Amino acid sequence: YFSLITQEAEKHRHYEDENEWSCGSWLEYTVVVVLASVLLLGSLGLTLFWVFQYRGGFAWRENPAKQFNLHPVLMVAGFITFSGFSVLLYRICRCCRRIYVKLLHTVFHALAIPCVAIGFLAVLDSHNLAQPPIPNFYSLHSWIGLVTMGLFAIQFVVGFFSFLILLCCEGATAGFRSALVPIHASFGLTTFMLAIAASVSGLTEKALFSLPDTYSQWIEEGIVINALGVSLIALGILVSFAVRSPTLKAGSKVVWMA
Amino acid sequence: YFSLITQEAEKHRHYEDENEWSCGSWLEYTVVVVLASVLLLGSLGLTLFWVFQYRGGFAWRENPAKQFNLHPVLMVAGFITFSGFSVLLYRICRCCRRIYVKLLHTVFHALAIPCVAIGFLAVLDSHNLAQPPIPNFYSLHSWIGLVTMGLFAIQFVVGFFSFLILLCCEGATAGFRSALVPIHASFGLTTFMLAIAASVSGLTEKALFSLPDTYSQWIEEGIVINALGVSLIALGILVSFAVRSPTLKAGSKVVWMA
Ligand code: HEM
Ligand code: HEM
Repeated sequence: YFSLITQEAEKHRHYEDENEWSCGSWLEYTVVVVLASVLLLGSLGLTLFWVFQYRGGFAWRENPAKQFNLHPVLMVAGFITFSGFSVLLYRICRCCRRIYVKLLHTVFHALAIPCVAIGFLAVLDSHNLAQPPIPNFYSLHSWIGLVTMGLFAIQFVVGFFSFLILLCCEGATAGFRSALVPIHASFGLTTFMLAIAASVSGLTEKALFSLPDTYSQWIEEGIVINALGVSLIALGILVSFAVRSPTLKAGSKVVWMA
Repeated sequence: YFSLITQEAEKHRHYEDENEWSCGSWLEYTVVVVLASVLLLGSLGLTLFWVFQYRGGFAWRENPAKQFNLHPVLMVAGFITFSGFSVLLYRICRCCRRIYVKLLHTVFHALAIPCVAIGFLAVLDSHNLAQPPIPNFYSLHSWIGLVTMGLFAIQFVVGFFSFLILLCCEGATAGFRSALVPIHASFGLTTFMLAIAASVSGLTEKALFSLPDTYSQWIEEGIVINALGVSLIALGILVSFAVRSPTLKAGSKVVWMA
């Protein structure tokens, strides 16, 4: 009986130890959360600014050239802003129950789906409805984009099924689910990095299509495009750091359990 | 005394446990090593093939347009092939002593330095000696490239100093060195991913510069460029998987120690 009490006390102590963050850990946490939010919302804002300030804003099928503009905006919204927040949730939420974090993670990724679908449709239309039509899927960018969308779809379906549906028989599937977590996390980070590679190559293409002679003259629009690309790269660095940081990982109890 | 023996036996048993890989682990190891070698050497080979088959091969200052061709080849050699093998060494070498792996890791990265330096010089020359000269550092690709080279330089200097020079006072610096390992590993992987993002945007630029009208017609050279880009992306996925795989990590005793 006495040993039981000691055990309980021990457990309690460990629990508190885990929760007790040093000043440095809180600093790291705050910097990551603030910087990530600024970059995730900032890159979406910058994309919108670019499209409206320099590319004439949005349209639908009546104007395929402007319909294209939906493509970068919606891809950044879906694959960067929504997905980025969704990935970071597991490091940001420090007190909510695990199931809420999981549901929010699912909701954020589910919100990315219509963005990506409409963004994809917009570029397909802008190719097929152009006069003369532009061929599809010839570029390195489009190949990377297809791989990204494929991996995203697999991650979503496998994750949804394994981490939510399989909760119905919680005990029986716990081992399977927790074995899947590191794989899901690893491929999730990979999908995010692929999205950044796709965006960077897409921005490069668009810069050369739209500014063939002036891009090299350091014009304003070129600098806006580069700044957008660099903020996406910065996001890649920040997210891969945040996901692997032992501090942020240790604190969030949701991570290596499903 | 008896307890000492038991302790020794325990230690020994654990050591063997760690070494005893299941069949699946060996399969994973073999697939990673073979696939990584094929992709690392293959992407360098494909770059050389592209440059010689379609771009007229190499030259130095007498022909700036051909001097440019050194740029992709040397950047891929330094940042992808050498750096990639160097990073994977820690997962590939399963029996050599730690210090040998470290030295080899340093040698491979040191070999990357002249490649990157000459590759950078080649593109600077090809801009400055062109008639008329082409401005420098205007593109998203060049910004990403500068960040990559900067991070590479910092990693090399900090790593060389901390993990080799500081060995002179081994005991006193052990804590510092082992605290630095995860940071060094994380930024090392980031540098590799940045190099892939730089390459992919560079390939996109070059495709549009050289094949402005034919890239969208699915011509052979365009497909070669895309295949090269996709093999670099595949490398990114493979390396980030290999570096994080618990199996490959557990087996290699060199990893979380400096
Ligand atoms: C993760 C985000 C992205 C994905 C998954 C993606 C995917 C795709 C795909 C699959 C295509 C081929 C459509 C076709 O050939 O019919 C395409 C085309 C295109 N995308 Fe993106 N894209 C992304 C972000 C961007 C961004 C940020 C830009 C910046 C402007 C961009 C610019 C372009 C351009 C110019 C094309 C037409 C030329 C081509 O086919 O390569 N993309 N994209
Ligand atoms: C990690 C690898 C790479 C790095 C760090 C890198 C770095 C750079 C830098 C700093 C510049 C600017 C030079 C200047 O403006 O004077 C540049 C230019 C260039 N690079 Fe790369 N590069 C890499 C790989 C590649 C690859 C694989 C290609 C494929 C062809 C490529 C194509 C180009 C082109 C076309 C330019 C000239 C246009 C421009 O300034 O953007 N690069 N690179």
